[in-house]
Amino acid sequence: MKSEATEAQVDEVLKVIRDLGFKPHPMPGATRTAIGITGNQGAIDPAHFEMLPGVAEAIRVSKPYKLVSRDLKPEDTIVRVRENEIGGLEPAIIAGPCAVESYEQTMAIAEVVASCGVKLFRGGAFKPRTSPYSFQGLGEEGLKILADARERFGLSIVTEVLDTETADLVEEYADIMQVGARNMQNFSLLRRVGQAHKPVMLKRGMSATLDELLLAAEYIMAEGNYNVVLCERGVRTFADHTRNTLDLSIVPAVQTRSHLPIIVDPSHGTGKRNKVIPLARAAIAAGADGIMVEVHNHPEQALSDGPQALLPEMFRQLVTEVAAIHRVIAEAETSLV
Amino acid sequence: MKSEATEAQVDEVLKVIRDLGFKPHPMPGATRTAIGITGNQGAIDPAHFEMLPGVAEAIRVSKPYKLVSRDLKPEDTIVRVRENEIGGLEPAIIAGPCAVESYEQTMAIAEVVASCGVKLFRGGAFKPRTSPYSFQGLGEEGLKILADARERFGLSIVTEVLDTETADLVEEYADIMQVGARNMQNFSLLRRVGQAHKPVMLKRGMSATLDELLLAAEYIMAEGNYNVVLCERGVRTFADHTRNTLDLSIVPAVQTRSHLPIIVDPSHGTGKRNKVIPLARAAIAAGADGIMVEVHNHPEQALSDGPQALLPEMFRQLVTEVAAIHRVIAEAETSLV
Amino acid sequence: MKSEATEAQVDEVLKVIRDLGFKPHPMPGATRTAIGITGNQGAIDPAHFEMLPGVAEAIRVSKPYKLVSRDLKPEDTIVRVRENEIGGLEPAIIAGPCAVESYEQTMAIAEVVASCGVKLFRGGAFKPRTSPYSFQGLGEEGLKILADARERFGLSIVTEVLDTETADLVEEYADIMQVGARNMQNFSLLRRVGQAHKPVMLKRGMSATLDELLLAAEYIMAEGNYNVVLCERGVRTFADHTRNTLDLSIVPAVQTRSHLPIIVDPSHGTGKRNKVIPLARAAIAAGADGIMVEVHNHPEQALSDGPQALLPEMFRQLVTEVAAIHRVIAEAETSLV
Amino acid sequence: MKSEATEAQVDEVLKVIRDLGFKPHPMPGATRTAIGITGNQGAIDPAHFEMLPGVAEAIRVSKPYKLVSRDLKPEDTIVRVRENEIGGLEPAIIAGPCAVESYEQTMAIAEVVASCGVKLFRGGAFKPRTSPYSFQGLGEEGLKILADARERFGLSIVTEVLDTETADLVEEYADIMQVGARNMQNFSLLRRVGQAHKPVMLKRGMSATLDELLLAAEYIMAEGNYNVVLCERGVRTFADHTRNTLDLSIVPAVQTRSHLPIIVDPSHGTGKRNKVIPLARAAIAAGADGIMVEVHNHPEQALSDGPQALLPEMFRQLVTEVAAIHRVIAEAETSLV
Repeated sequence: MKSEATEAQVDEVLKVIRDLGFKPHPMPGATRTAIGITGNQGAIDPAHFEMLPGVAEAIRVSKPYKLVSRDLKPEDTIVRVRENEIGGLEPAIIAGPCAVESYEQTMAIAEVVASCGVKLFRGGAFKPRTSPYSFQGLGEEGLKILADARERFGLSIVTEVLDTETADLVEEYADIMQVGARNMQNFSLLRRVGQAHKPVMLKRGMSATLDELLLAAEYIMAEGNYNVVLCERGVRTFADHTRNTLDLSIVPAVQTRSHLPIIVDPSHGTGKRNKVIPLARAAIAAGADGIMVEVHNHPEQALSDGPQALLPEMFRQLVTEVAAIHRVIAEAETSLV
Repeated sequence: MKSEATEAQVDEVLKVIRDLGFKPHPMPGATRTAIGITGNQGAIDPAHFEMLPGVAEAIRVSKPYKLVSRDLKPEDTIVRVRENEIGGLEPAIIAGPCAVESYEQTMAIAEVVASCGVKLFRGGAFKPRTSPYSFQGLGEEGLKILADARERFGLSIVTEVLDTETADLVEEYADIMQVGARNMQNFSLLRRVGQAHKPVMLKRGMSATLDELLLAAEYIMAEGNYNVVLCERGVRTFADHTRNTLDLSIVPAVQTRSHLPIIVDPSHGTGKRNKVIPLARAAIAAGADGIMVEVHNHPEQALSDGPQALLPEMFRQLVTEVAAIHRVIAEAETSLV
Repeated sequence: MKSEATEAQVDEVLKVIRDLGFKPHPMPGATRTAIGITGNQGAIDPAHFEMLPGVAEAIRVSKPYKLVSRDLKPEDTIVRVRENEIGGLEPAIIAGPCAVESYEQTMAIAEVVASCGVKLFRGGAFKPRTSPYSFQGLGEEGLKILADARERFGLSIVTEVLDTETADLVEEYADIMQVGARNMQNFSLLRRVGQAHKPVMLKRGMSATLDELLLAAEYIMAEGNYNVVLCERGVRTFADHTRNTLDLSIVPAVQTRSHLPIIVDPSHGTGKRNKVIPLARAAIAAGADGIMVEVHNHPEQALSDGPQALLPEMFRQLVTEVAAIHRVIAEAETSLV
Repeated sequence: MKSEATEAQVDEVLKVIRDLGFKPHPMPGATRTAIGITGNQGAIDPAHFEMLPGVAEAIRVSKPYKLVSRDLKPEDTIVRVRENEIGGLEPAIIAGPCAVESYEQTMAIAEVVASCGVKLFRGGAFKPRTSPYSFQGLGEEGLKILADARERFGLSIVTEVLDTETADLVEEYADIMQVGARNMQNFSLLRRVGQAHKPVMLKRGMSATLDELLLAAEYIMAEGNYNVVLCERGVRTFADHTRNTLDLSIVPAVQTRSHLPIIVDPSHGTGKRNKVIPLARAAIAAGADGIMVEVHNHPEQALSDGPQALLPEMFRQLVTEVAAIHRVIAEAETSLV
């Protein structure tokens, strides 16, 4: 739509699309609204739409992913979670324990996170575990603890949704619903979070190509939820000095093809604390829209993934460095304009 | 249990395990019954059980996977599907179209398969597709067509279960419920098929290690379903001459560690017809308990994965070769005894 | 050239090519001779050659590899080593110790190999070792021991050439010069063995694509040595149940694109003895032109790679199985004609 | 050695080691000298050395790599090239064309590089090419052009040595001899550059593990050349949005285990210009001791690897950003002390 298009004009276009039997996907940006069309079999003549009042142009998106594509919506998507933004001017930092283990542990870590000025708090209540005999999370009790941390410290909550059965519960408590790497192609779950009224953070699968990641996001957006944040967390390779190989080159690659924000999780990517800080800094320098890291007050006692959690003082330091590195990049970009 | 143990003795051991608050898993073999124990926190003293009548020995399984392990049950598991066996003396052949596309197509292919003496028929009614806009399968209608093929040609049906929502439906129609590679770590789905009364074929994930595959099977068995068939279908690598790299070395590796049967799907592994036959033969030569291949009467018209489907006459030839190669291996093993 | 072309006609074509400033590569087959042309910048008009007497047709090879390509020479290349063939009707078996360790060890193993009717003997005198402090082979002394084994047991010798410095020495003693995986893109060495008067066995690099393997062979052939045998020995992947992942799908892929024979080394591919036999059988079933395996009389004492060497009785069994599986395939192919 | 050890004391220890039949490797650091010992079969009693005057302690290095190890030499190694340092306080930037193509091209790019204050100039005179028919570099003529650029712009020259045959030539002209990824395990070449009187930059192989990279450096150091710079340039994975997957996690991993400097080459790692700048910044943020990038004045005319070369103005911008990001890291580290 043109930047001066009225709301009535947008509504009229949506109606025309619906009347043709297709599904319209309006995505407002800072200056203008993009409207995606799905549900069509084969190509539609752009002339159908270009004559409608307020329409700037009609573009045929030739990629397998449509709504995700920057061809459709050239402007960056900013995902808003309460007063916070992911994909906006400042890099987003999401921090917290791997798993919610107890009320005390969660509040202690939430206090650290909040005291560093960080607003997005992560913690798993439902944990995907390779073994059926490992700790599977506190479930709803864990969600309630997270809600208490939100209340007490003014944090927004990022927590994983494992399956469609518990999706209602997670949607009720979470501010951002996280879809884990193992579920990146769990299409029923993608459709379910596509119907949710909360933003979704979608982690790249352990051996997912860029196209597969974008098509997984497309599943979510095709259901009408356009608030999707992508997350790189490392891929499987032969390399054995880290648990996974963090693939930072996907950051500029996503930004070229898609308008969606992308953040990086170096905690799972590297699996070891002494590599988390260098790679978190590197993610920001590569242009990521944010990072997600694990922080633990007593990592040696953590029920899952202790060795990769940052100690509070390391995290505080990292927050400062992230801001400083981001400032370098932002200034560089400004000077180029 | 000792091979001469009575049913009453087995029942008594099961009762003792339950009374201790644990979960017993009786798995009968050709000569004796193995009983796995799960649900314990920490080690249990073997002496608890070794004094019970009929007990041969109590073994502590130190691996992360218990019920899957050959330590617990040294005898090969034979999965029985109506009159057919997977893991028995003869290699199992599972064949059919990638997706059920129509009544006519399905019956035509089923006729070919049955006419070659093959008893296990595959075909997807629910299809996992990378793109939300691709053909997703005929759903229940597809299952009904498969049931008709079973009726008409005396075939057993292998078909994929995509999610917990449609699991009841698939369980009703299928003879073997297939869990696809993308769902290998969909733990809710694993638990659901673990409660099913049908055998499960579990495909290896695209970047799953051997341990992860065995632990995924453990999820199913921990729920009480011990009829699990593993399936290698190729992994993600840098190699670009095939869609995936078929990893036949996992066949002897699984057989060393687990009593479960393992079959190989060279159709998805290679993605190209002219590689399917050589690799299907190779799978049998490597000692696999069977193969699963795609057959199509008009591959050029197939709605999904046409280029990898065998033509009827190629399939007929393959069935003969599989039998001949298996005979070589079987004779070799006999001559070694 | 036409199948009835005379030697004089072939010579005349070679002369014409040379006179144009290009390099001719005559490769005789069973029924007719193919002549490759390299050294040209840009395309040459086929009409230059098609009018010459004895010329059947002139084909422009559009692939980056020319001499290797089946487009140029549709007939399979058979590499002849004394009275033995690789790429002919029977599968080639190459066996012996990883490294030549002593006169006694080598003779003992050579005796086993010869007693099984196997004619191609492998053994390393120069060993590529990851660590500078590991045993690097016996050097020329090792080559002399191999020559003694040839003399005594009527074997042909396959041994690795590590660098251009020792290439003269290896060329003097070896019947087939092996280029190892780490040297697949050591272009100086490829050029050197391209000038040798002995056949070359070229192993696939640990992360080489099919194109890279074929182009490495092209380096050898471009120097005038057309007796090249390719060898798959496993690639690097995330999988941890074997040292490398043996990629048998490259066998039919090579056979489609190239006329060169391809064999498989399952010893290095799997790294463990109990996987060598299943995968050696699988290689033959996949259509490989042969296998190369390590045999050791005392694997527990081997100075390198002991755990993957077959015991003599295992090897004897394998030789029988290889012949039987090959017979199945050969009959199948005959029946298709 | 103790920090107050005299040169005579160091010499005495070297003599004792030689008299025992071993090879001593003295490596001076900023405050004290470490002396490695190789050539021993099995362990040596540390008491042999600890009683000698000036010896601080004798440590048994249990890793397969000895001289490379931080256990032996806890202080960072600084490689000095004329007035420049790699591994010192400032990040090193190495820039220039992929290949030396002509006098004019080289001078034009050298002028850009020098005008940005960058002192290390790269350019290949001998090029490793996958195809025998691709441009293989200008050879000695290229080296002479590089020497002219050094003379004219006060640059130090980094250029690749492809084989032992041309090593004398490269050693004569280069300031740093680069060993490429394909040659990382070309052990003869490693030994040859280990005898050179010029520093060596060793690139990680396309599927090399961290241990293999360190052991390749050990080959060089075992010959007496301790001026080794490691270089990450991307590894082979399934990911298809970049040519290789740049593995920045190896930077902190190397720094934990080894005292050698490590730099990053994002040009070859990503293969595309728009990813080079983000990943070059990321490398510095991850703590790398420097970067190596390709710069070209007319990338569209480059004879090799044009699409990954930076334009002059992009490079100028990058130099500024690298300095700024490095300052952030350096300040952070200071504030932690």
